[in-house]
Amino acid sequence: MIALPDIRSAAAVIAPHVVRTPLLPFGTGWIKPENLQPIGAFKLRGALNALARLENRSNGVVAYSSGNHAQAVAYAARLHGVPAAIVMPDNTPAVKVEATRALGAEVFIVGITERVERAEALVAERGAALIPPFDHPDVIAGQGTIGLEVLEDLPDVEAVVVPMSGGGLISGVATAVKSLRPDVRVLGAEPELAADIAESLRTGELVRWDPLKRAQTAADALRDEPSALTWEHIGRYVDDVVTVSEDEIFGAMVRLVRRARLVAEPSGAVAVAAQEKIGGGGVAVVSGGNVEPALLARLLAG
Amino acid sequence: MIALPDIRSAAAVIAPHVVRTPLLPFGTGWIKPENLQPIGAFKLRGALNALARLENRSNGVVAYSSGNHAQAVAYAARLHGVPAAIVMPDNTPAVKVEATRALGAEVFIVGITERVERAEALVAERGAALIPPFDHPDVIAGQGTIGLEVLEDLPDVEAVVVPMSGGGLISGVATAVKSLRPDVRVLGAEPELAADIAESLRTGELVRWDPLKRAQTAADALRDEPSALTWEHIGRYVDDVVTVSEDEIFGAMVRLVRRARLVAEPSGAVAVAAQEKIGGGGVAVVSGGNVEPALLARLLAG
Repeated sequence: MIALPDIRSAAAVIAPHVVRTPLLPFGTGWIKPENLQPIGAFKLRGALNALARLENRSNGVVAYSSGNHAQAVAYAARLHGVPAAIVMPDNTPAVKVEATRALGAEVFIVGITERVERAEALVAERGAALIPPFDHPDVIAGQGTIGLEVLEDLPDVEAVVVPMSGGGLISGVATAVKSLRPDVRVLGAEPELAADIAESLRTGELVRWDPLKRAQTAADALRDEPSALTWEHIGRYVDDVVTVSEDEIFGAMVRLVRRARLVAEPSGAVAVAAQEKIGGGGVAVVSGGNVEPALLARLLAG
Repeated sequence: MIALPDIRSAAAVIAPHVVRTPLLPFGTGWIKPENLQPIGAFKLRGALNALARLENRSNGVVAYSSGNHAQAVAYAARLHGVPAAIVMPDNTPAVKVEATRALGAEVFIVGITERVERAEALVAERGAALIPPFDHPDVIAGQGTIGLEVLEDLPDVEAVVVPMSGGGLISGVATAVKSLRPDVRVLGAEPELAADIAESLRTGELVRWDPLKRAQTAADALRDEPSALTWEHIGRYVDDVVTVSEDEIFGAMVRLVRRARLVAEPSGAVAVAAQEKIGGGGVAVVSGGNVEPALLARLLAG
């Protein structure tokens, strides 16, 4: 498991390259707008930390992702001047493929079932290093820097609400928060349609949901499931889970536009929807803002 | 004219109550997202400073505004526990009237030509203090704190791009920037449809445009004109003006959503449109984000 010194060390490593996001008042609580990071999501923190700590990165890095992790790794690699190969499934929206290429990465489009295999082949062929989206201590420590910043900015915070899927973000944030302030509540937020961690915490053991079931949520960045590593952090540190409906997610997206002037993707609004559901208060992490403009237009025209 | 110590002093006064907005990378330059202030616009800075410096505020404050200044004064008054009376013209959108009332202000709806008169009557009746939207040294000094923050965060900044209308924002920012770093260029941004300051700087004297002409721009917060006080600051400090078309403004709004995950109102995107027009670089101030959701939906569906 990771510990506070790993997160403090990550904070020093990534500070020159990430936006120090402020807390913004929202209702009776606060939000932390990680959608304002250069690639539009918190994922940059973990990717930057992992890449900076690679002992040998001269042969480049490899990642598989259809989403924000792809751009995070591409961005971090460009910053460090190393080549990045990103494996993306063939159902990835063209706009995301182009955004990843625009950051200088070489993109490999494969069938959804082949992506891990292809990434591993690239690692073997090139002697490159794989940067996983969440299942790695350096990635988790990078995401945890958000927890440090929350405590710095709001020492009397009572609760932190964090979206969960693979669990990298909440593992890092919860480790930071509970190490420094065990009294602060750490709440996970999940879409009802992908609430496998909520069920796991209720039953006390890691349950697996059918990926096709999880794929039904519009929160497309929250369709993953924890690894053994993230589940260990979650089981130890997370106090409770709040699940939200698709309508609650879309409603939170609209309120973020109207009341906070922020664009969130569905996954990025899940913690805010959870915060609203429990009556406000605390700090909710707005994890990303890479939404299809047409979806946002439909919701705003509502 | 105001000077650097006024702005430094304002910064100390308002710091506990405003969001310390970060600089965000945008294209080859940066943006300063003042739309993230609690009321969605930079106006909070000036209103807070002016209100805090009133010698006698026990009888409350008065303002006339249909826009962001109304909510700024209402918010600042609530914070200090003093009554606020806001005079709004009868063509103010209901949503802005309600937002101002929701902040605890007493709202007076009057014909557009009567608003100054009514505000002055309220001041006389109540012994209250008028907080003007831009024509006041304390308001200008409050807005100038943005300039200090830009220099703190980006010491090697080459240019700052600021929207202009009444001129309070650019007067404050330019005073801060030029006092500390005379080599940094200060550029004003105006809609072509309300480019009276551009013409004034070209001809060397303050020209007045027909308010009905200025009212044609969608940038509804930029339909004012300078006072003698702000014109003095502008003439002394502003290096050049960039004017932008309505289409360039709308285009910048869309790019702010897609690339910066920020919601700007048309006026709030004018400096960004100007920044883009001159090829990027520098810091553009995103001055506000209180846009009608239906307008944003139309632009995004575009």
